[in-house]
Amino acid sequence: MASGKRSGEFERIARYFAPLAADVPGALGLRDDVAFLEVPEGQELVVKTDAVVEGVHFLADDPPELIARKVLRVNLSDLAAKGAHPRWYLLNTAFRRDQDDAWIAAFARGLAKDQAEFEVQLVGGDTVATPGPATFAVTALGLVKASWGLKRSGAHEGDDVFVTGTLGDAALGLLVRRGELTGLKPKLRDHLVERYRLPRPRVALGPHLLGVATAALDVSDGLVADLGHLCETSKLGAVIEEALLPLSPAAKAAVAARPELIERVLTGGDDYEILFTAPASADKMLERLAREFKTPITRIGRTTRGKGVAVVDASGKRRSVERGGWTHS
Amino acid sequence: MASGKRSGEFERIARYFAPLAADVPGALGLRDDVAFLEVPEGQELVVKTDAVVEGVHFLADDPPELIARKVLRVNLSDLAAKGAHPRWYLLNTAFRRDQDDAWIAAFARGLAKDQAEFEVQLVGGDTVATPGPATFAVTALGLVKASWGLKRSGAHEGDDVFVTGTLGDAALGLLVRRGELTGLKPKLRDHLVERYRLPRPRVALGPHLLGVATAALDVSDGLVADLGHLCETSKLGAVIEEALLPLSPAAKAAVAARPELIERVLTGGDDYEILFTAPASADKMLERLAREFKTPITRIGRTTRGKGVAVVDASGKRRSVERGGWTHS
Repeated sequence: MASGKRSGEFERIARYFAPLAADVPGALGLRDDVAFLEVPEGQELVVKTDAVVEGVHFLADDPPELIARKVLRVNLSDLAAKGAHPRWYLLNTAFRRDQDDAWIAAFARGLAKDQAEFEVQLVGGDTVATPGPATFAVTALGLVKASWGLKRSGAHEGDDVFVTGTLGDAALGLLVRRGELTGLKPKLRDHLVERYRLPRPRVALGPHLLGVATAALDVSDGLVADLGHLCETSKLGAVIEEALLPLSPAAKAAVAARPELIERVLTGGDDYEILFTAPASADKMLERLAREFKTPITRIGRTTRGKGVAVVDASGKRRSVERGGWTHS
Repeated sequence: MASGKRSGEFERIARYFAPLAADVPGALGLRDDVAFLEVPEGQELVVKTDAVVEGVHFLADDPPELIARKVLRVNLSDLAAKGAHPRWYLLNTAFRRDQDDAWIAAFARGLAKDQAEFEVQLVGGDTVATPGPATFAVTALGLVKASWGLKRSGAHEGDDVFVTGTLGDAALGLLVRRGELTGLKPKLRDHLVERYRLPRPRVALGPHLLGVATAALDVSDGLVADLGHLCETSKLGAVIEEALLPLSPAAKAAVAARPELIERVLTGGDDYEILFTAPASADKMLERLAREFKTPITRIGRTTRGKGVAVVDASGKRRSVERGGWTHS
């Protein structure tokens, strides 16, 4: 594909990125070398960085708007899962030489949309040209009440395990994109692909879990792996009931047609939902939050003494996940 | 080159990077998803991010220790030039698949050295494999007394223009590395190359410029370009006297042999010295700081009414730098 106009670095920053920093006085219009940011008294800074690489985390023909929104959202998701309010972000872009002004304009439009939706602002960045695959990294900065931030540690034995939203859509969406999951109705198929391309970080809900959840993280590596991380850090085990897993109509249809796809739901990742533990006494509060934020919050199991994550299937059989696959016991 | 052992992502983080975060409790040993950082009352957060790409900003056969230290140092330099104390950093690494554990261990050793030297700590990061050139980005976080941070704006007409250290070494060092600058004694040649590979950010000195300098930035694009940035933002012009430029013995020898190399000194960049403006009344204080930090602080010109940067050469001729080259007037 022939590429169009390619402005220089300074012009690109001025035209496409500086407008994204216009509302933060300390970002100095991206015309200085640094940004100066105020952290209010009693608040703590929460930081996270994650990168995406073309061909690995997104596909070369994905729309630039969605690529931009995805790299921002995967970082916002981490802050939200810790109960933090995302506020600012920095952006490293390594554009391919054929990514022209039109491509970058669309990329910046994606960021602008999400800035409005999630109330975050660009405060700095760096742009280079690369002869390799395009690569984008976001460093997200948020605020949380000092010492209240949620961690992987902190779960107690017997806490319930909850997850927001639905699971497995993104992992199944990737199968659809690869042509490995066919036969679904177009509307269901589109739902799955859209969840793969555009995570929905629980930014509004997350901060309300402070004082309610005992431990939390977002589901990016996969439900079983991430619950494993939480359990390991909290020095506990956990049991998940397969029958309780919240599935979208599209994921339900896929699993009904091919029951083995439940493994994708459990291990596929890219969900960007909040996985957390809370005592039984939190039930009423969680029901209220689910209603207020129009977001399902589903109990899917509980923590136990011991180690590792076990899954009990609908027939009552217990299976546990080992490195590299499933074993039934 | 055959590559050696390549551990998985989790193992690499645990072995090579987690030790770099050991002294910041809020980094949670890099075993959680975020870091929690305290910004003391009365302080402001200062943030900067910059990336380096193999083949563009460093060469594939540069020692991994020096590559690591360079990407960290170019970011620390920006914070120092704003009067901030660097405290923490996040690191995005996109390693080539053949960069094995030994390579990464050396890279991490470079970071450890600079953490000790500059009292900064790793608090988060992200590591991916790339089929393209290795790429590294650092996001540096520092602290400065709230509202005291130095900016590009703030210079007054008639302020003196100062620069720390010496100019041109790195740009001449790159010429040496490319085989385009020969005939120097080995010791002088080595000095230039070392300055190219390993910038010396003025981290200890920088914060002492608060309340002394009126505007500041670090010299990364080149003296004339960066002074141009400062002047543009401060709505002033400036005159530099070529005879006042602080040159190392190596740079002096290079320019003596090939006088046209003075242009490299003025425009080459990669100096990572602090360029700042201050009123004449600051002279005594600056002399004291130069002695205390064993760092030359040299007056090289002054700001003027008007626009743009002019250079007066040793014979009194005024030449001004235009986009794409020099003009004599």
